[in-house]
Amino acid sequence: MENIFAKRMQGVPRSFIREILKVSLDPSVVSFAGGLPNPAFFPVAEIQRATERVFATYGAGILQYSNTEGDIKLREQISARYLAKKGLSIPPENIFITNGSQQGIDLLGKVLLNDGDRVLIEEPGYLGTIQSLSLFRVQFVPVPVGDDGMDVESLGRLSDGCGAKMLYTVPTFQNPSGITYSDDNREKVAALAKRNKFIVVEDDPYGELRFSGAGARSFAQYLPEQTVLLGSFSKVVAPGLRLGWIAAPAWICEKLIIAKQAADLHTSSFTQKILYEFLLENDLDEHIKKITQAYGTQCRAMQEGLSRHFPATISFTKPEGGMFLWGRLPKEMDSMQLFQEAVREKVVFVPGDPFYTNRSKTSAFRLNFSCVDPETIEVGIKRMARALEVYGACSCRG
Amino acid sequence: MENIFAKRMQGVPRSFIREILKVSLDPSVVSFAGGLPNPAFFPVAEIQRATERVFATYGAGILQYSNTEGDIKLREQISARYLAKKGLSIPPENIFITNGSQQGIDLLGKVLLNDGDRVLIEEPGYLGTIQSLSLFRVQFVPVPVGDDGMDVESLGRLSDGCGAKMLYTVPTFQNPSGITYSDDNREKVAALAKRNKFIVVEDDPYGELRFSGAGARSFAQYLPEQTVLLGSFSKVVAPGLRLGWIAAPAWICEKLIIAKQAADLHTSSFTQKILYEFLLENDLDEHIKKITQAYGTQCRAMQEGLSRHFPATISFTKPEGGMFLWGRLPKEMDSMQLFQEAVREKVVFVPGDPFYTNRSKTSAFRLNFSCVDPETIEVGIKRMARALEVYGACSCRG
Repeated sequence: MENIFAKRMQGVPRSFIREILKVSLDPSVVSFAGGLPNPAFFPVAEIQRATERVFATYGAGILQYSNTEGDIKLREQISARYLAKKGLSIPPENIFITNGSQQGIDLLGKVLLNDGDRVLIEEPGYLGTIQSLSLFRVQFVPVPVGDDGMDVESLGRLSDGCGAKMLYTVPTFQNPSGITYSDDNREKVAALAKRNKFIVVEDDPYGELRFSGAGARSFAQYLPEQTVLLGSFSKVVAPGLRLGWIAAPAWICEKLIIAKQAADLHTSSFTQKILYEFLLENDLDEHIKKITQAYGTQCRAMQEGLSRHFPATISFTKPEGGMFLWGRLPKEMDSMQLFQEAVREKVVFVPGDPFYTNRSKTSAFRLNFSCVDPETIEVGIKRMARALEVYGACSCRG
Repeated sequence: MENIFAKRMQGVPRSFIREILKVSLDPSVVSFAGGLPNPAFFPVAEIQRATERVFATYGAGILQYSNTEGDIKLREQISARYLAKKGLSIPPENIFITNGSQQGIDLLGKVLLNDGDRVLIEEPGYLGTIQSLSLFRVQFVPVPVGDDGMDVESLGRLSDGCGAKMLYTVPTFQNPSGITYSDDNREKVAALAKRNKFIVVEDDPYGELRFSGAGARSFAQYLPEQTVLLGSFSKVVAPGLRLGWIAAPAWICEKLIIAKQAADLHTSSFTQKILYEFLLENDLDEHIKKITQAYGTQCRAMQEGLSRHFPATISFTKPEGGMFLWGRLPKEMDSMQLFQEAVREKVVFVPGDPFYTNRSKTSAFRLNFSCVDPETIEVGIKRMARALEVYGACSCRG
């Protein structure tokens, strides 16, 4: 009966990250491979107090089935934060709660995508989206991103007449590259979205984790009727609660609610109320400041280590926030081969391949700095430098 | 851009239950329409203590991202319970945690179903499954169920050569009818599944809520390699945690995990650990006994009220557990019209239509007894009897 499976299950990329995580379980291995927020900054005591208040305040009702859209009080908090932080006026009715922003991607796929539909996606791009939308058997149209955002010339050429329904982007502190689209770049991308009538999906799990530079605008400011925002509490509070949201124009919301109901009725009313109480009683901005100070220090430590120990032929992005750096080996090199050497040196990272929809043997790779302290970073970067030497990258030294 | 939506979103039935729930918000209305467990039996204090232990024991790690399959300790508890209660030997590796069993339905759809695939489904059947699988654009093949289970003759005729990939069933205290498949009936259904190579999806959210009669076997006892079990803590602990599971043969598990990861990475590690601690420190059987005693009393009160106040031309199922009774008006009558009269009398129930894949104007209807005490049941049944009189059903009195 092995041939009973749906066509959509054929050729779905198995998550390479899962394989890497197995290697990283060895405590003697330094891991730059993770994509996890640093648990040292999870506000455990505050969440515990919020949970106590939930039990004291709400009683049994908080454990009952609830509405598909999510807790209206929590949605009001999200709405208020959009206004305060971005000047965006998004009514709570247009926001609904999902199991992390990952679920938002799946629901958008359900609501929008037929077999063979074209999806514009930044390249390199978030591998969870590549995996999730692969299940809808879409045809990815990758659009390169550089240091300032999307290659607009390519986007224009690729989207004109292509009939793509959506563009997926993480425009702020991108996963995997750490880059941020400039406001000017966003404006141009939005203009193309308007011209070619595709929805811009702005996935923004890292946007609040800025440790240098100044804030970026949202696509919703340029193109409110065609922008869907995905948000997450995973990086600013804690991922184990599995709470994220979609903010979408009303005409899309209605369909998304049907898809959410069919998927799992609703997200836990209990964890939603805990988060609501947490946000009510704590200063999220102060909390985020602690996270970004640490991530900023760690990012700088990594950048300094790289410039000290790596040959100049290897270039890196310069993130102003988020959790990732993106490195590029000389073109003829293969980051997967470097990875094999690195494992021997007891350091791991993510080779570039899974961030591309249709490429292997890429020369790029992702480094995570959120979960490693400066001393460990120094150790890991030195080990990577040795791996580079063994692999022969040092012969490329300029 | 309204035509941007995926084909699967066309013609998905809007949940009628949601509409009814709006009417039931009026406190003067007696509702037999819900499908909710009674919150009076949610073990709130015990869950609170379990939550305190989670904070005391596990620290920040419990709020981190976790594995897609779910907490291995919780999966071991589920595995042990299958063995103790059903004699089923299902290794924890073959069980994984979902956001309620509703998500299990969606994941099975993803993994198994192409556009136009045939799905055998009991009729009447769970409307959440009809809604969820409609999104996969399947062709439903409804198979009637009677008091002892599925009409085996119909199942044989409908499944021979039809190429259906799965049969969806709630064989114990069915939603909506409250009936239970006899062991003999299950054996015959399993034989047909073997012959015609379809997977049996046994959704069992109510199986533990037995207040009379003796236990039923599982399809997994007859057909382990072709049975997928869906389970839920929503009816025996509390739905707001959104915790359920899938237990499947290894050859299906592997694909389900990919689908789960793409859908939302994993279910909340925090709520999973709370449930684990709850199960560790409490006697679930004792807790379930309290629930079933109350539900049994309420079911009997409803049955007595029905036999006192309703004409003999209206028949009812005789549930031995669960939360629902199923009524049948004389064939020429329309339960939706009765519903309109009932709203005027301030009592609501669910007309049969949404439990059918392709029928309207059904003469059947569902009554829920889990959330109403005997006195309120008496009031509600009297009101329904008046509605019946107005609608003219009493002229059918034998």
